[in-house]
Amino acid sequence: MDGETPWRGEGPEYGRRLTVLSQGRFGPERGLGRVLDLLAGHQIPGTFYIPGYTVDQHPEVITAIQGGEHEFAHHGYMHLGTEGLDEGGQRAELERGLTAFERARDPPDRLPVRRLELTPETLAMLTEFGFGYDSSLMADDRPYWDVSGSAPVLELPGHWSLCDWPFFGYTPYHGGLLANPDTVERIWLEEYESARAERRVLTLTMHPEAIGRGYLIRMLDRVITGMRERGRPWFATHAQIAALASQPPASARG
Amino acid sequence: MDGETPWRGEGPEYGRRLTVLSQGRFGPERGLGRVLDLLAGHQIPGTFYIPGYTVDQHPEVITAIQGGEHEFAHHGYMHLGTEGLDEGGQRAELERGLTAFERARDPPDRLPVRRLELTPETLAMLTEFGFGYDSSLMADDRPYWDVSGSAPVLELPGHWSLCDWPFFGYTPYHGGLLANPDTVERIWLEEYESARAERRVLTLTMHPEAIGRGYLIRMLDRVITGMRERGRPWFATHAQIAALASQPPASARG
Amino acid sequence: MDGETPWRGEGPEYGRRLTVLSQGRFGPERGLGRVLDLLAGHQIPGTFYIPGYTVDQHPEVITAIQGGEHEFAHHGYMHLGTEGLDEGGQRAELERGLTAFERARDPPDRLPVRRLELTPETLAMLTEFGFGYDSSLMADDRPYWDVSGSAPVLELPGHWSLCDWPFFGYTPYHGGLLANPDTVERIWLEEYESARAERRVLTLTMHPEAIGRGYLIRMLDRVITGMRERGRPWFATHAQIAALASQPPASARG
Amino acid sequence: MDGETPWRGEGPEYGRRLTVLSQGRFGPERGLGRVLDLLAGHQIPGTFYIPGYTVDQHPEVITAIQGGEHEFAHHGYMHLGTEGLDEGGQRAELERGLTAFERARDPPDRLPVRRLELTPETLAMLTEFGFGYDSSLMADDRPYWDVSGSAPVLELPGHWSLCDWPFFGYTPYHGGLLANPDTVERIWLEEYESARAERRVLTLTMHPEAIGRGYLIRMLDRVITGMRERGRPWFATHAQIAALASQPPASARG
Repeated sequence: MDGETPWRGEGPEYGRRLTVLSQGRFGPERGLGRVLDLLAGHQIPGTFYIPGYTVDQHPEVITAIQGGEHEFAHHGYMHLGTEGLDEGGQRAELERGLTAFERARDPPDRLPVRRLELTPETLAMLTEFGFGYDSSLMADDRPYWDVSGSAPVLELPGHWSLCDWPFFGYTPYHGGLLANPDTVERIWLEEYESARAERRVLTLTMHPEAIGRGYLIRMLDRVITGMRERGRPWFATHAQIAALASQPPASARG
Repeated sequence: MDGETPWRGEGPEYGRRLTVLSQGRFGPERGLGRVLDLLAGHQIPGTFYIPGYTVDQHPEVITAIQGGEHEFAHHGYMHLGTEGLDEGGQRAELERGLTAFERARDPPDRLPVRRLELTPETLAMLTEFGFGYDSSLMADDRPYWDVSGSAPVLELPGHWSLCDWPFFGYTPYHGGLLANPDTVERIWLEEYESARAERRVLTLTMHPEAIGRGYLIRMLDRVITGMRERGRPWFATHAQIAALASQPPASARG
Repeated sequence: MDGETPWRGEGPEYGRRLTVLSQGRFGPERGLGRVLDLLAGHQIPGTFYIPGYTVDQHPEVITAIQGGEHEFAHHGYMHLGTEGLDEGGQRAELERGLTAFERARDPPDRLPVRRLELTPETLAMLTEFGFGYDSSLMADDRPYWDVSGSAPVLELPGHWSLCDWPFFGYTPYHGGLLANPDTVERIWLEEYESARAERRVLTLTMHPEAIGRGYLIRMLDRVITGMRERGRPWFATHAQIAALASQPPASARG
Repeated sequence: MDGETPWRGEGPEYGRRLTVLSQGRFGPERGLGRVLDLLAGHQIPGTFYIPGYTVDQHPEVITAIQGGEHEFAHHGYMHLGTEGLDEGGQRAELERGLTAFERARDPPDRLPVRRLELTPETLAMLTEFGFGYDSSLMADDRPYWDVSGSAPVLELPGHWSLCDWPFFGYTPYHGGLLANPDTVERIWLEEYESARAERRVLTLTMHPEAIGRGYLIRMLDRVITGMRERGRPWFATHAQIAALASQPPASARG
């Protein structure tokens, strides 16, 4: 649920670029409704990563999502790239994001976190702030414990090929691929076949700003249907997946 | 009907780049004729956004378009990106565009406006200059009232995935996707199916510089035919759509 | 037949980049043979635009091409972008290219010219040097007289969508699209259908560095066969097309 | 087996970008296993180009690869672009890469080399260090002797269209094409058809970081199967191909 944050976070010049900001607003104001309807129709829960700024500007998205079996997740405050921030800036992003959830009605008790880029500083803070798991790293396509920091962190990895934005996101400032939805349907169902054969999890990442367009909701509907035709998928939140993960490795326990 | 303006507006160095300028001239001098013929064959009206410079350099396009049920629309003077202009520069773009239409034979009484990027300054001028509606923002895929300024502005939104330029535009200076026309036919017909199911409008944006190529006119013909095979579309100008829009929200009336 | 020239012309740092230079050498040393074999098999003549540097470095290409009904054409000396050169630099590119042809065995009497970008200075020199026609501008997809200079110049226009390089060219320095050959076959045959319906010429531009790869020669074979299945194309050199062009407009005769 | 090296070698700022580094780690830690399993299932040997840093950080990849009929090959130490290094820096890359192999268990006697970009300095060192052959240049699609240096060097050329990275590699810092795997399957099988008709070698380059994703291993499986359905391919290491190459040209013997 990035909304306007990727652009606002990119620099102050974006504050007056109403067109690209309106592309971001499409997510909470229009795309989210379609996504929730589709998930409800298929009886599928989702994990919603929401920057604090989106929570502040669009508190109605919290209400809309709370009605289902969905999970809330932390996604910073302004979607700032952590690699461009010092430790204080990274801490502020984390804390401001938490505060926004606290301000919103009925905040979740515990939050996973997903970042564009993870740095050692933020990795250490995940343990400090008590996050149960993270979804920023991609060294595997199965849940794994990252042991590079002071304490092991459970990673639930995604991948760019399993995310809608690189395929469908487009702005005049950044360009984009504007891919054929049939290509993405093909890739995601092929990955599903691989995951099914290996009995592993598959994490798809989507943004209501992108997947919420009419022609892409139709694609997502075909992807879900195609998965069910090919096997018996269990659609789960990150919390449900994390609950099944193995214990952290003894050698890395803090 | 951008013609040469996107390149001339990008910087004075483009003034002597005859090849890329000739790509722009293809629109008014060659592509427009094909587009008008196709629309006439299908009995479809269009809304033509024309920068003032194109009106000045190619007054024959006004004559050619006037013969149908088409609508003229404002598109600045030199296609200058408003986010790079101060308030005076934005005002000049608007006024010079209006003046060019006035100089041309039989100017329209009232003009909608479409910009690459909209800023708060230009948004405010839309009300000041009496524009009836605008097509710059993308926070929804249905007509909506933008209430961020001093007075509500009726938006008739398009989207990059529903525009020919990101798919087919190409220059050696900017690159491009040079997409498979079957991909775009697929995307646009899928979006049409979504719009039909939701009984909403669908705005396709096209440039005679791009869509006017022979192989793309054939695609557009298939898109129109495909829409008619799938439903009973009503092809309308922006003026016709705006006339059906709801009244502005009371809370935002200036 | 650009060979190494686009990279060498881009800057002196390319002089030691042996890998990208070897990509260029692939054209004259390997790709050209395949192209000539394919054309011979289909009994099709071509117009070969050759920078002077390629003529100097690979004189064997002149011999190889001379055996057929092909036409030689001027393409500068080092493929330098004219928009980055002053008048003297543009003149040197033209003259050095001519000199290289004169040094080679059996030079053609008269040369058309094709440039990446055309500027007013080079346009004026075309008349001065007595070039019969040019293929740099794209304001139409039929032969036309450009009357912007002191004397009319006959243009035989190509287009980026009808060129192999934007689709298939790739270097680590510039990236590229690495398109599906079926996409390009589709585009080119669709454009052929359009040209056939309008009884107009269609100019395809190809580089042995790109089209000379094994998988692309197979595509070109299918394109030629596909054209013959759809109609009765006349494959001609630019000289043959120019001979059929109308006289220059009286108003612009120098 | 680039692993983390392309990013670490790009600049020190990548040292703390844990997400993109984890994309690199996916290769040795996850993708390699899938690749080795697939090759074993098809009884196909491979040549593994491994930067020294990957050998140092992931010595287990040496053990895993040694079990098959595979070949080890030199790929620098940190995947540094040679065109950005002076002669001393290029020498250090070569030597450090050799040392890493020596440190690892059971190092190969003799190493071919593959570089992103080859410069005259590194070309000369290939002879000095006694490399038997190289796979950096692309002036042909058959093995050939490069005679531009002091001694002829046997080249076993690849090409970007026959490499997985330009099609499937993606990072937020560099973008990428995220191609349809069916497109690449099509290109590679078309190239195979061309190679089969000409009875020549075809070199496919793949990175476990890219091809090791689940949906792409399935594509590679189809490519191998498709080759066997179309002909009787001999799958060989570079060492096996080099052993069949002709003697170096007399004129260029050092």
